[in-house]
Amino acid sequence: MDKRPLILITNDDGLGARGLEHLVRIAVRLGDVVVVAPDTPQSGKSSAITVNTPLYVNEHAPIDSAKVFTTSGTPVDCVKLAMFAVLDRKPDLLLSGINHGSNSGVNNIYSGTMGATMEGCTLGIPSIGYSLLSHSPNADFDPTTPFIEEITQKVINHGLPDGICLNVNFPAKCTPLGLKVVRAAKSHWTEEYATYATPHGKTFYWLTGKLFNEEPDNPETDEYWLARQYGTVVPIRPAQSATDQIPTISRILGL
Amino acid sequence: MDKRPLILITNDDGLGARGLEHLVRIAVRLGDVVVVAPDTPQSGKSSAITVNTPLYVNEHAPIDSAKVFTTSGTPVDCVKLAMFAVLDRKPDLLLSGINHGSNSGVNNIYSGTMGATMEGCTLGIPSIGYSLLSHSPNADFDPTTPFIEEITQKVINHGLPDGICLNVNFPAKCTPLGLKVVRAAKSHWTEEYATYATPHGKTFYWLTGKLFNEEPDNPETDEYWLARQYGTVVPIRPAQSATDQIPTISRILGL
Repeated sequence: MDKRPLILITNDDGLGARGLEHLVRIAVRLGDVVVVAPDTPQSGKSSAITVNTPLYVNEHAPIDSAKVFTTSGTPVDCVKLAMFAVLDRKPDLLLSGINHGSNSGVNNIYSGTMGATMEGCTLGIPSIGYSLLSHSPNADFDPTTPFIEEITQKVINHGLPDGICLNVNFPAKCTPLGLKVVRAAKSHWTEEYATYATPHGKTFYWLTGKLFNEEPDNPETDEYWLARQYGTVVPIRPAQSATDQIPTISRILGL
Repeated sequence: MDKRPLILITNDDGLGARGLEHLVRIAVRLGDVVVVAPDTPQSGKSSAITVNTPLYVNEHAPIDSAKVFTTSGTPVDCVKLAMFAVLDRKPDLLLSGINHGSNSGVNNIYSGTMGATMEGCTLGIPSIGYSLLSHSPNADFDPTTPFIEEITQKVINHGLPDGICLNVNFPAKCTPLGLKVVRAAKSHWTEEYATYATPHGKTFYWLTGKLFNEEPDNPETDEYWLARQYGTVVPIRPAQSATDQIPTISRILGL
């Protein structure tokens, strides 16, 4: 690429999150950056889109040399509105994050960070989601810097395969020992709700729970290496058709 | 299966949608049915989960012999709360829908109907999402009945492969000519927003747009057959790791 790439940055923790600012300060060294982020936290929003209410776009003070906008929508809305109403051309790269919290294992499917990343991919933009395994608003993102620089620059130089984006996770409170390109561990959440009673005696529930890793000893998986202080890169294919299963399903249905 | 299966039904249009009631009236002939549906419309909610607010569960009058509950959450929240707070055992089958509107092509990723279906699959429940290509609240679901009976009974009898669920779509305003097991058409949305100005002159946006089918003449895809009055069955793999791309991504990143 001859000229500086145009880099769209979004996240799901919203403007003001340290992880977003950290990512912007890395990206402005690699290209021209425009931020279009949610104006409120949007964790767990997956690929949700806002269908039944109007959306607003507002401009904010720049971060370093990056222009900064917020929308009133979800992370996917941010990507769609960036393309429709903010940018005057298709970006060369989309970065999402750095998320405060893990998007490894099964979390890819619930993650707003990865929802935005997969939206970029679906629109034909090389797209990377970055996450740190700490929910702390004051988490230390510094150890991720050289890894994010390296991955981002390589993707700027070489692109990504059509229909594939990256889900990158970093261990917390340590310098990663290296990077591993792996798949997500087969996993699911258990013990998912805390239970309460209102002052009037009605039960209510609050989402919580534990990630149960169904294959903790498998070095082909992200959870295995994150537990051993490595960063992980999982290639993600947003399109979920299981084409290989068409013969099996045809047989089950007698078709 | 010797005894009547336990069937969990949810949707994203919420309790009161005709498509939900239609599906319940089919399912009560095939098993013992419990409905856990959203108390408000949740279209476009994908696999979103409610992280930062409490959730409520309420019981309603039965539909035929089916027990009926609502939650204040998303379709995925409904599945999680059904498992945690409503059902006393894991269901033998999850059905989601019948959605008022298409979930073919790229729509699988934004769909709350399919978010719930994929959640069931992730939890190890054979899961099927049903959708009709009409947004009308008064859409005629009758032509879908024999097809839904057939697919549902076959899945009760034979199960589904581990990690695979089904996304079933029906054409509107006609009796389907048959069923095709295919993959989703590669597609994306264009012209995505209607633009307005408030009385005070501020611009706002409302999601709209057109589905652009990137391969309209390909008989391997759902859109091709839906346009020719067939119902379509797409096998869906919720886990999005592109394991086949690990060597390519390793090469791009120099790892």
